[in-house]
Parts: sequence; structure tokens; C-alpha cells
Amino acid sequence: MRTVGLIVEYNPLHNGHYYHYQQSKKVTEADAAICVMSGHFLQRGEPAVVNKWARAEMALHMGVDVVLELPVAYSAQPAEWFAYGAVSALDATGVVDSLCFGSESGDIGWLNQAAELLHQEPEPFRALLQSELKAGAPYPAAYSRAVARLIPGADAEELAKPNNTLGLHYLIALHRLGSSIVPQTIGRTKAGYHQTDITDRQIASATAIRKLLFEERSLSGIRPYVPPGTLAILEREWAAGRAPIDWERYAQPLLLQLLHHTPEQLAGFHEVTEGLEHRLRRALTELPTWSNGGPTVESLLSLLKTKRYTRTKLQRTLTRILLNHSKQELSSEVLRRGVPYLRVLGFSGKGRELLKRMKKTARVPVLTKVTEGEHPLLDLELRATSVYALGYEAPGPRDLFRDYYEPPVQL
Amino acid sequence: MRTVGLIVEYNPLHNGHYYHYQQSKKVTEADAAICVMSGHFLQRGEPAVVNKWARAEMALHMGVDVVLELPVAYSAQPAEWFAYGAVSALDATGVVDSLCFGSESGDIGWLNQAAELLHQEPEPFRALLQSELKAGAPYPAAYSRAVARLIPGADAEELAKPNNTLGLHYLIALHRLGSSIVPQTIGRTKAGYHQTDITDRQIASATAIRKLLFEERSLSGIRPYVPPGTLAILEREWAAGRAPIDWERYAQPLLLQLLHHTPEQLAGFHEVTEGLEHRLRRALTELPTWSNGGPTVESLLSLLKTKRYTRTKLQRTLTRILLNHSKQELSSEVLRRGVPYLRVLGFSGKGRELLKRMKKTARVPVLTKVTEGEHPLLDLELRATSVYALGYEAPGPRDLFRDYYEPPVQL
Repeated sequence: MRTVGLIVEYNPLHNGHYYHYQQSKKVTEADAAICVMSGHFLQRGEPAVVNKWARAEMALHMGVDVVLELPVAYSAQPAEWFAYGAVSALDATGVVDSLCFGSESGDIGWLNQAAELLHQEPEPFRALLQSELKAGAPYPAAYSRAVARLIPGADAEELAKPNNTLGLHYLIALHRLGSSIVPQTIGRTKAGYHQTDITDRQIASATAIRKLLFEERSLSGIRPYVPPGTLAILEREWAAGRAPIDWERYAQPLLLQLLHHTPEQLAGFHEVTEGLEHRLRRALTELPTWSNGGPTVESLLSLLKTKRYTRTKLQRTLTRILLNHSKQELSSEVLRRGVPYLRVLGFSGKGRELLKRMKKTARVPVLTKVTEGEHPLLDLELRATSVYALGYEAPGPRDLFRDYYEPPVQL
Repeated sequence: MRTVGLIVEYNPLHNGHYYHYQQSKKVTEADAAICVMSGHFLQRGEPAVVNKWARAEMALHMGVDVVLELPVAYSAQPAEWFAYGAVSALDATGVVDSLCFGSESGDIGWLNQAAELLHQEPEPFRALLQSELKAGAPYPAAYSRAVARLIPGADAEELAKPNNTLGLHYLIALHRLGSSIVPQTIGRTKAGYHQTDITDRQIASATAIRKLLFEERSLSGIRPYVPPGTLAILEREWAAGRAPIDWERYAQPLLLQLLHHTPEQLAGFHEVTEGLEHRLRRALTELPTWSNGGPTVESLLSLLKTKRYTRTKLQRTLTRILLNHSKQELSSEVLRRGVPYLRVLGFSGKGRELLKRMKKTARVPVLTKVTEGEHPLLDLELRATSVYALGYEAPGPRDLFRDYYEPPVQL
């Protein structure tokens, strides 16, 4: 059984993802697909629009065979750690043959060339990166500029595109892990979409879809852009008060966390670096007044925004503060070990066969049920689920501690 | 200028308070009245229905001359520490001649007798108290039973009435502090009310008034029971999204605090004693489901309730968890020192004269403006105000940090 690995967030799963899934199986000639999916807090530092079980269900409806959870330690991270965690998970299964990711480039060649050069972070690269950072560039821009200056023909602007950046880091992670997984990429171009039944008019980005959800406060607007499975699941979750979730649902708990910690204590949270703790405290005193909309998370982000800090960096920082994740808990030393377990969120009939094989091949424990105290990173996950559920309209104990109760979704 | 001291919460100020105020000035032949008022979190472990500046304003409208704030370290405490803090404040002013409190008894005689005997906690009393506690009685009941067993003629049931209990502890505090303030009491009887213009039909307890506010979600129902000043102020605060406040406004932050701390860490909070930390964690897993109303603070309190723990004890415990107040910050050693400052919330024209005198007579600093870092107990106050403001509909920075901005209310 040839198996392709996908790294996803499905926030929510839409027609573009469906296209990517189909193409991935086709170009890799795979019989089965395993995806590693972010749980409740995503790469851009945002809470998922709907919980991870609902999103796993969407993936299974589409045809994915096994959905593994990317631990929150890796999911709400810059591209490097996000990619490293996700690739380490696919690699640890022992059954994934290929990795197929979408990219703006669509060309694996130059990305792989760059990855080969970069995966050991050679001294000249580090020097270039430092000089770009010192010049005041935010990290992602500094990174791509340093790459472009090092590699003839590499284009900083091209590299800085989000899916190229992620792709590069998937490739770097494969190198670092000495993985045998074969990488491929599919261009995320309009032309690409035309290769299937799905037309342009059926494609909208997840960002555009979320915008429709939150601005229209109804599901009807997204109908053209998502598979029927997604729509039905979102309808059910919405009716139950569990969706759509955005940052504003956590304004009160986030402010509590900010108020309960001195700047020195704030500096102990992951991602709070370079004096950001003082900026955070100051921002609290500058929040908009009642007549200007009050202290939304959006207004806090605006106050924190500078050239140096991207919005996603700031969102990830607020995520760590909300979740109470310390620098110590998420140190490089901890993260470098890769995922310490494979948490199964859902599987299909074929997925059951894959999981059976994984019992023998996997290099870390495969978990279909979880308890407290098994692993520090899993404990972070359980707490993240509890905090996420605080955003529901009326979270019950099964919501707060759903990680303990919920068996993998099966289709 | 003869000055009477009053210990109050005014949550909100109603006709019964007005009666008490008038009678207090009359029986003590006072020219002026100073009150010590709980700030944002009250003796029964509840957030005030409206913020402390609004309640100070109500007091000034009624005729009180100076409103001092009882620090949160003392305000959300059992009767002993609440009374001790409040009496230490009145005593520290150096200008208060008498203290006049309402009681069910209306007779200072036996209360004072009991206080004289109890203020040094003689060994026989402590032994009786311990044996009652060991038999499983909640603290307030155990206390009054021990007193009744010690003092011939004292009636445990009579003593256990809330205002008698508070009164006894005011008297004990006067003894402990060696204060020269002369105590008097006014009976809280229906007959008493008839002595003024205010008739029965104009009297409702603060509890009944709050019930009207929250059940009817309108102010019209309370009109007969409150002075016009109270009504106007409540109307203004309500319109601004700052009232009416109850525990449910803090459900999400409270749950966050409970989820972010291990039982061992919970045990570090003030009032979390005797394994209550485990009970708290267990209660989280037993909260009502969505169809049963979801995880309200009310449902949490019901789950925590036992014979041993009174509702007020549990509410005070949740208050300390919400506010992040540790056992260390509120140790007996700290509290025994009495209030370390007198924070002025408001004053009248006559109050200004009193404050001038207090500049010379007060035994602790008199503060009309505050900054961070002046005193650990004041820092708790500033944080309590921030957390309280999280319950507003849209708290701005002036709400979160109002302690820094707001000068005393002046009429």
C-alpha cells in the first residue's frame, strides 16, 4: 500500500484542499493518504474555526485514511518548527512513502537545492541571517533574503511566499531527519485547479471562507467553496455553539493572563522575546475605549504591531500566553526530539489497516486514547483543548476534557 | 466634629442603609460620618453589583462625608478578618469617635461581654472550637456554638445571625487594637424601620434588590427600595455596560485559572485548604452539559457545596483563585498588621475638613491617588480592579487601570 503524507490544517476543509488531496494521490500514485493536522491552535497563531474532531471528520469524508494530530507544541510555531514537527510525525509512522505539499512555485528542484544547502545552517548563512535581522527585518523576510543572497538564482520574494517557505522547511526537515520519504510539490495555481472538475468559481482560500463565516454569521455564503461534508459538519458544530471560533472568543481570558503576570513573568512565556513583555503591558494601557469598540484581541494586535513583528508572530505569542506555555516547556532541546507520540484523531477502513501496520513500524507510540501524565507535550495538548473549549457558547465537561473521552473519528 | 464610623458594602445602597446611616448619626450624636467600604470584591465572596466609585458616589449622595476603601485583602474574607481590617481602618484615621453597626440583636451588652471574653481566644474557647470543627460543622456554626458553650446565656443561633456575627467581630477587633472608638448598635428590626419616614414597603434587603436586578434585567423594579441617587447612578453605569455585575461575568476567566493550575498549584491560593484543590479539579469534570445550562459559576458552586463548606466560603475561595491571591500574600502575619494605608474613594465638603485633620491624626498614609509598587496590598487592589473590569461589556484601559486614573469622587 503506497502511502502519501499530507501536512494540513483544514481550517476549514475546502475545495482547494480537495484538489490538493486528489492531485497528491495521483502524482505520488498512492493508494492511501495520511495527514498530520494541527489541533486547536494553528500555524498562524489562531484558534481553529472549528474543533479538531470536526476537522478530522471533514478529512475522512474527503477520503483521507488516517488523521494524526500535530501537537500544539509544534502547530502554533514559525515555519521551521511547524514543518519539523509535522515531518517528524510522518517519518515516525514508518509507512509514509511520499510527502506532497502545495507551493506557489510548483517546482521541487530549486526548493530542494536550497534545502540541501540550508539544512545544516552553514556559518555563511547564519551570518547573512543575523545581518538581515540586525537591519530590522522580521524573521521570515530576513530568512528568505539571506537564502537569496546565498543561493544564486534564488528569488527572495518568491521564497517568502507562505507555501514556498513551508515547503522549503518540509524539505529541510526531511534532510535533518535523514528521512526516506520522497517529497513532491503541486503548484497552487489557478491553472492547476482547472485540471479537475473544480472550477475557479468553486475555489476560495480558507482565509476568504473564514471571512465569509464571520462577516455574514451564516453558512450559506461558503456553500460554493466547500465539499458537502464540510458544510454539514460546520452546520452541526455551529448549532451546538462550538463554531465558528475566532480569537475574540478568548479576549477575556487572554486579558486575564496579561493582567496576572508581571512583565518579568510574561517574559517566561514562549515567544515573548526582545522586550515584547513591556510592549504587551504598555498595550494594555492603550486599548481602545468603549466608544471605540473596547479591548478586542484585534485592537491588541494592532497596538503590538511593528515592522519587526509580523501579525502571525504576535498571534503565536498571544497563543502561548493564553495557553500558559513557558519557554522551558517548548525549548529547542525539547522540540528537536520530534513528536514523541502519534495521536490518532480519525481513520477510515483502509486507515485501520494502516494503523495495524504502524503498530509494527512506528518509531513512537501510536495513541488512540490519551490520559494525563503520559508525556509533557501531551499534557499541553489536553490543556489546549480545555482552553479552546472556553470559546464555546456553553462548554460542558465533555468539551473541556474531550481529549480524554473522544475516540478517534471513524467513517 | 464628632465622627461616627460605618462599615459598609452598599451593594447597592438602599433605603435600609439610609435608615442605618441616619440612626447612626442620631444615636452617636455625630456631626460627620466616615465609612469603610469594600471595594470590588465583597465579604460574601462576590463581585460588587457595580464598581466602587459608583458605590462611593451613592454614599456621598446619602450624606456620608468620607468613603475609605477596605482593601481586597480584607474585604473578601471571613467575618474575623473583614471586621479586623475595617475596624483597623477606622481606628487608623485618628478621627473616628464611635462605630455604629446594625445587628439582629440590637443589644450591645451581651455582644460586648462575649467580645471581652473572646478577643484573646482563651484556651478553653479554642478547645471548644476545635471539637465543633472536628465534628464537621462549618466554621461560622462551630464558632457560634463554641461561644454559646463558653458563655452562659449566649444563644448560638442568635449569635450565628450574620450581623450579630459581624458585630461581635467588630467588638473583638476594637479590643485587639486597644481602640478608643466607642461601639454602638442599632437593631435591624422592622419596628426600627418604622421610626423613620421609610415604611416597610420601601425596605428590601440588598440581596432581594440584586435578585430584582438580575431577574428582571431592568431597574424599574428596585425604584421603591433605593434612594434616587442610587437609581440614577445605577442607570448611568448600566447604560455604560458596567453594571449589573455578577459572578457569571467571570465564568470564562475563572475556568481558565482552574484549568491552568495543577491541584498542587491550586493549593497555593488563599482559602484553598483541606484538599479543596482536588474537589475543585473534580468539579470541573462534572460540570453540567450544554443541554443543562453549561458550566456556570453557579453550577460550579453547587458541585463544590458540602455541609462543611458554606457557599460564602466557596465564593471567597473562587474569588482568590480568580484574583490570583496566594496564601503567602494574605498570610495571618500580613493581615494582623491591619490596613497599611487609607485609600480615599470619595469625600464631601465636610469630608475635606475631616481629611485635613486626618493628615495629622492618621497612623497610616492617607492616599488620594495611587501608583504601582507602593504597597503589596495596594498592588493586589490594582489587579483586582483590572479583573473586575473584565466583567464589563467592553472594558477600556481606563476601566482596567481606573485605580491609577480616578481621583476621589467629590460631591
